[in-house]
Amino acid sequence: MNKEFKRIGLICKPDSPEIAHTIQSLHTFLSEMDLSICIDPESSKYISVGDEYILKHSALIEQSDLIISIGGDGTLLGAARALVNSNVPLIGINLGRLGFLVDISPTEMQLQIKEILNGNYHEEKRIILNAKVIRKGELIYQQSAFNDVVIHRAQSPGVIEIDTTVDNVLLNSQRSDGLIIATPTGSTAYSLSGGGPLMQPSMNALILVPVNPHTLSNRPIVIDGDSKVDIRFSQRNYHQAQLSCDNILAPTILEGDTISIQRHEQRIHLLHPPEHNFFEILRVKLNWGRTP
Amino acid sequence: MNKEFKRIGLICKPDSPEIAHTIQSLHTFLSEMDLSICIDPESSKYISVGDEYILKHSALIEQSDLIISIGGDGTLLGAARALVNSNVPLIGINLGRLGFLVDISPTEMQLQIKEILNGNYHEEKRIILNAKVIRKGELIYQQSAFNDVVIHRAQSPGVIEIDTTVDNVLLNSQRSDGLIIATPTGSTAYSLSGGGPLMQPSMNALILVPVNPHTLSNRPIVIDGDSKVDIRFSQRNYHQAQLSCDNILAPTILEGDTISIQRHEQRIHLLHPPEHNFFEILRVKLNWGRTP
Amino acid sequence: MNKEFKRIGLICKPDSPEIAHTIQSLHTFLSEMDLSICIDPESSKYISVGDEYILKHSALIEQSDLIISIGGDGTLLGAARALVNSNVPLIGINLGRLGFLVDISPTEMQLQIKEILNGNYHEEKRIILNAKVIRKGELIYQQSAFNDVVIHRAQSPGVIEIDTTVDNVLLNSQRSDGLIIATPTGSTAYSLSGGGPLMQPSMNALILVPVNPHTLSNRPIVIDGDSKVDIRFSQRNYHQAQLSCDNILAPTILEGDTISIQRHEQRIHLLHPPEHNFFEILRVKLNWGRTP
Amino acid sequence: MNKEFKRIGLICKPDSPEIAHTIQSLHTFLSEMDLSICIDPESSKYISVGDEYILKHSALIEQSDLIISIGGDGTLLGAARALVNSNVPLIGINLGRLGFLVDISPTEMQLQIKEILNGNYHEEKRIILNAKVIRKGELIYQQSAFNDVVIHRAQSPGVIEIDTTVDNVLLNSQRSDGLIIATPTGSTAYSLSGGGPLMQPSMNALILVPVNPHTLSNRPIVIDGDSKVDIRFSQRNYHQAQLSCDNILAPTILEGDTISIQRHEQRIHLLHPPEHNFFEILRVKLNWGRTP
Repeated sequence: MNKEFKRIGLICKPDSPEIAHTIQSLHTFLSEMDLSICIDPESSKYISVGDEYILKHSALIEQSDLIISIGGDGTLLGAARALVNSNVPLIGINLGRLGFLVDISPTEMQLQIKEILNGNYHEEKRIILNAKVIRKGELIYQQSAFNDVVIHRAQSPGVIEIDTTVDNVLLNSQRSDGLIIATPTGSTAYSLSGGGPLMQPSMNALILVPVNPHTLSNRPIVIDGDSKVDIRFSQRNYHQAQLSCDNILAPTILEGDTISIQRHEQRIHLLHPPEHNFFEILRVKLNWGRTP
Repeated sequence: MNKEFKRIGLICKPDSPEIAHTIQSLHTFLSEMDLSICIDPESSKYISVGDEYILKHSALIEQSDLIISIGGDGTLLGAARALVNSNVPLIGINLGRLGFLVDISPTEMQLQIKEILNGNYHEEKRIILNAKVIRKGELIYQQSAFNDVVIHRAQSPGVIEIDTTVDNVLLNSQRSDGLIIATPTGSTAYSLSGGGPLMQPSMNALILVPVNPHTLSNRPIVIDGDSKVDIRFSQRNYHQAQLSCDNILAPTILEGDTISIQRHEQRIHLLHPPEHNFFEILRVKLNWGRTP
Repeated sequence: MNKEFKRIGLICKPDSPEIAHTIQSLHTFLSEMDLSICIDPESSKYISVGDEYILKHSALIEQSDLIISIGGDGTLLGAARALVNSNVPLIGINLGRLGFLVDISPTEMQLQIKEILNGNYHEEKRIILNAKVIRKGELIYQQSAFNDVVIHRAQSPGVIEIDTTVDNVLLNSQRSDGLIIATPTGSTAYSLSGGGPLMQPSMNALILVPVNPHTLSNRPIVIDGDSKVDIRFSQRNYHQAQLSCDNILAPTILEGDTISIQRHEQRIHLLHPPEHNFFEILRVKLNWGRTP
Repeated sequence: MNKEFKRIGLICKPDSPEIAHTIQSLHTFLSEMDLSICIDPESSKYISVGDEYILKHSALIEQSDLIISIGGDGTLLGAARALVNSNVPLIGINLGRLGFLVDISPTEMQLQIKEILNGNYHEEKRIILNAKVIRKGELIYQQSAFNDVVIHRAQSPGVIEIDTTVDNVLLNSQRSDGLIIATPTGSTAYSLSGGGPLMQPSMNALILVPVNPHTLSNRPIVIDGDSKVDIRFSQRNYHQAQLSCDNILAPTILEGDTISIQRHEQRIHLLHPPEHNFFEILRVKLNWGRTP
């Protein structure tokens, strides 16, 4: 066994009894390999271990060489955000249905995790964003986002006017429902519904997607992943907007606030079974149909 | 002068001092033609007339042979909704900037309105919608919409699931940000930003446009204008959604409510100067560029 | 049995031995019902009947009360074009795979056709187009199209400039790869790939879809089905373009030619089993996923 | 003056008498600065110089420290393709109309070129593609492309089936009109009409855009600029397809051929005036409207 991964941390989907069997069998399997295993409080609903092995995410990550996320893409997104200041790699087990991110199925997990623990894996480094809300010069909110940062008009109906700068140079002023700033990871999520392109996951790039823009030539734009994107907005009547990071709603933002988005220096290390194939996941998830 | 239009009602954009001169000169011009003129309370901010000539919209319409809307497309939309149970025709004067609906400019209004009053006009009959919210079998809200009825998720983030039936037959269940039900008139408004087609204004058809649908093959669909469209929704976490008709926000709708949309039997009669050309308006407003 | 349908004509997909069994069993089944059956030369490859029962499409239609098309959507399109000057109704049997048009499967055909012959069916009247090429005032080509008429640049690469008038009024001048003029029936075909909306099949409307237009605000437009659409084009270098009707390539068209498109007065009568549901076909064919 | 740029080469738009004045005044201006100037045969139509100063593109580039392209974006594309094996930088003067690439206007060229010659410029390195056609193991055609490589069905109508691999891994098999492989430079050209995203010009990325794909979830995908893209196709009936590089039509390609696309190791060095602003060019060229 690879010495790299001796301490394993498990993070699981909240409030999901259907996960019990998978997490139990995973725990048993890892225990039999003589690995040190810590679990998050959610996982402890399904496994009886000593209290000393139950840790919150930050402590869990600190004491782990590898994090295993069990759940859907959303669970892995959360694990990734928690990992943002560490170098601990991450793998994702799904609940029987392939995700864009969680590619190991419960039925094959023993075989595939064994391979990964033996050092036989495909490593992918993916960028992750940090969004700051600055009000009158002060940082009032900060959140990581592995998929996307979304600014959206406060309430239906009514457009929002968004001014976007990239590295302090004006990109444009648009009237729309909102703006999505997506990572390559997020290119298969909301950005895609909004008309954004798909993107190879390990690229260092951002996608800016206007949401239902008033001007029809306002189109998605791909920019360098090292860019700093600053957003200011105005909205007639409401004077406020909604900000969310990976679907986590931030406190209401106000006219005059600046939302400043930049990638974390560190990237997320996703490990996949060696036969992992992103294009195949696209073909399956997007119903692209027959392979020749 | 055409005997048809002896009593003229003026409806103007609220809170818009910039409108004063246009409405004054229009009033003078019409008065000199020996027409009976009533104005809405908004207009009375700029014109001094006897109180008996200041009427609310419903009374104004009842006593008019022709309504003139002065303002932007939004002002005309409001006038059209007020007209829904009458047969009174409507013309729209803009504030110096061509709208999709308000096609008479202040500088040409005297000439063009004179022509119309002389019976020299192009009449267009356009459908207008009625949206009902039914809760536990009871009608709790009702609103007309000349552009569109929009159901949208309650809050950012999070998708809404919408089940749509057309004449009681299931169209589909979609996960999205919302659904637009647009008239041909509304085909140049929000529906267009959402990817819907343009449509000749006098057609008897509806456009259903999914807003950022999760399934990429969920596309705008054009259906018969006589259809009854019923919508039910669910939204995880919020269990509510926002409904708006021509950007007028309805009371919050709840899971279990049915939104039922059908066109009014009566249509809106828009009068245009004889040289009116819808395609030319499209070319100008959408920057289609050079005429050959 | 309904007296309406005593003489049945069969039209089958060319060069498709896989069709043999279906057409044989259909022929046997119809013969046993004491109906008069004529077949097209293609069908005669698989059935032995007297020569007097083998007729070309025009004669076949003249002598039939009902045409049954066996094959894919393409076969039914061809049958519909052949039917354009008659009132004979049409039904479509597929080859085991649901089409947008051919909705009766071989396994259920006996039951469903019996129902239809008994007068228990859903009748749909759909518009069909006629395209004319006029050169120097003379008609040089004419073709029907049940899906669409497509004008496309002659050769790759290079744009074509297309001037379109609707009822002799200029719609626009566009630079693009081409223009699709689709019927509601064609709204699920090439028009859909080009960004056009879906449309209820029995509507009297046309969809004009610019193909990869240079100007991003050039969008699909839905117009009245009674419109006359005239097209003229220019193409730098090539001075010619390709015209096709339901994928049938017309002789090369030249700068100066006018392509004039108008619907036939007569509509195509499609018969479906009573439980026919267009929206369900959309859900299946477009992978719209789960029914609630 | 910067010693870097002592020998200037001029490349101009072919067959464009309207260019005469600009190229003459540019030549005079450069001569007065004591620079060595060579011109291409096209330019020699408008300037009288000794034959020894008239050189074909390859020789011109070899003897120049800087190439100035005078014309539209197409002229600059051609100059870039000619420059592919050198390190000579390139600037573009337009003919009075801003291009996406040619950003120096004739009226400002003296001032702006002087600045650039003085070393006061913004340098941008952009990737450029090389496309190879391989038939039965042999290279039969090769062409550079600064905007895009496009494979398109041979003839209208009829779809083409395209299998694409990225670094020898299958991306997908699609049925469509064709496939665009665009550089960031090409993101404002045909790719944009086909629904591709805009892209910052100096990124090392490729955009693959399916042209009117049959499957609606077939969407543009952005991949790493160092990827090798291989394409094979089949087309029923025609068994051939059209390949073009920056609109230069290649010899007809046949089923069985492999089109292999990879970026040149060297990049194109575009020089701009210091105040150059790509986003502003987007705003102007795409009619994005008002700056706040």
